[in-house]
Amino acid sequence: MTVLINRLAIIGVGLIGGSLVRALREAGAVKSVVGIGRSLPNLEDALSLGICDDITQDPAEGVRGADVVFISVPVCAIPGVVAEIVQFLTPGCIVTDGGSVKTAIVSECEPLMPSGCFFVGGHPIAGTEHTGAAASFATLYRGRRCILTPTERTNAAALELVSSMWKLTGADVCFMEPGHHDRIFAEISHLPHMAAYALVHAVGTADVEGENVLSYTAGGFRDFTRIASSDPAMWRDIALMNKNALLKSIDGFSTSMAELRRRIEAGDGAALSEFFTISKQFRDGII
Amino acid sequence: MTVLINRLAIIGVGLIGGSLVRALREAGAVKSVVGIGRSLPNLEDALSLGICDDITQDPAEGVRGADVVFISVPVCAIPGVVAEIVQFLTPGCIVTDGGSVKTAIVSECEPLMPSGCFFVGGHPIAGTEHTGAAASFATLYRGRRCILTPTERTNAAALELVSSMWKLTGADVCFMEPGHHDRIFAEISHLPHMAAYALVHAVGTADVEGENVLSYTAGGFRDFTRIASSDPAMWRDIALMNKNALLKSIDGFSTSMAELRRRIEAGDGAALSEFFTISKQFRDGII
Repeated sequence: MTVLINRLAIIGVGLIGGSLVRALREAGAVKSVVGIGRSLPNLEDALSLGICDDITQDPAEGVRGADVVFISVPVCAIPGVVAEIVQFLTPGCIVTDGGSVKTAIVSECEPLMPSGCFFVGGHPIAGTEHTGAAASFATLYRGRRCILTPTERTNAAALELVSSMWKLTGADVCFMEPGHHDRIFAEISHLPHMAAYALVHAVGTADVEGENVLSYTAGGFRDFTRIASSDPAMWRDIALMNKNALLKSIDGFSTSMAELRRRIEAGDGAALSEFFTISKQFRDGII
Repeated sequence: MTVLINRLAIIGVGLIGGSLVRALREAGAVKSVVGIGRSLPNLEDALSLGICDDITQDPAEGVRGADVVFISVPVCAIPGVVAEIVQFLTPGCIVTDGGSVKTAIVSECEPLMPSGCFFVGGHPIAGTEHTGAAASFATLYRGRRCILTPTERTNAAALELVSSMWKLTGADVCFMEPGHHDRIFAEISHLPHMAAYALVHAVGTADVEGENVLSYTAGGFRDFTRIASSDPAMWRDIALMNKNALLKSIDGFSTSMAELRRRIEAGDGAALSEFFTISKQFRDGII
């Protein structure tokens, strides 16, 4: 394998960044890797696990000489990180990210890039419930989608390199306009999280003669609401960053919920069957 | 073990009824069992698996001589089944059920009982994704709750016998007013199913530039929406039979969803964090 990247800087060496490096190393596609982050213990893990050759808590120092910078920090923090590093980038450097919201990130980061350096928005669709460098593994992206969100400003060669990078991890790379990405993920990811949080909130605060109804929950409720155990700070950021698409998705859901409520209130068995059957068909179609 | 039931009639010998019989047989608590149902192949399974000693498709014939009749058919059908069998019951017979809605069933079935025969409403909180006699197993109820819903009309000895029967399966028996049961299960079971059906409906019909957004779903969405693959006919019946409690739960959920939407629209990060954190605490508390 030809080396694709000589010096890769990873800002935020967790499950996502660490797994990217492991896959690229297995493919022989990267020469050296510097890990950049706030948590020294995590960086030391990344060093001792052989994920990184060098580590630093200083982004300015870390990105120096890198031909690719991959940013995997909370979505709200990505534009700030880009603003912090741009003056230290080597000409020709490509900056890309793994954030699950794209319009806000791409539109804020693109104008920050100095001439001769390039930003490419990305979103690998993979993860586990674990976090940190120690949780990373080389096969995380195998067979998973990685969405890249070029715009009319995106440099073709930079896009090609980032695409090649993700293909080497085993991911299926596809391209999408940032707004289109955000509307899709508002529907299939952000909305379900909001619904789960709201459902647990409603059930947890329901007053049924003062009894704690949550004590009666069985497997079904637990499975259905597992995603309401997700990190509140991460979902706060996503809700703030993908506000417009998410509000639209919530409104669509509320319309469906109101329609279902209407059929229940009307006691219309045939209309209820139809509603549930359509949903079941949608659901069974994605198994 | 003393025999608790000489002749047990099971109307609907599926996962629920079959598992009850298997557990009672293991405990040596039942002398003979007759299986009653519409599907002859399922009844023949129940016979060949040793669940039933006799089988019949005629409820009138089946309940003759039974000291306990257990009904496990779709909730909407339970009152009709009781109406069909009452004139054939042996004096002293106890009729009980496993329906997941209780107010409508108990209030319809109690007045149907002839003098000297007794109705006890019940709801064992157990199940798997499989159905039919062949899916039943003796340990289904071990450590699970079984809720009995006596009223002021309930015969104390009949309640005691049904309670003993469920305890022999390994279930934790508890007692609850039917309306209280229905409000609790509207919250923790019926509402989540409605939310899952409505969510899949909304996402499946969402128009994102004509693209099928469901094709992008990953594990999280699949897990969250698994219950939208449940049997539409069963959930139609539950929605019809527990209408009032369910409408109240849906309204509580819509209020929570609207409050979350308000916080997203306001871009209020602190208020979003608070909402998600409260939900996460509720959810983590039930693990």
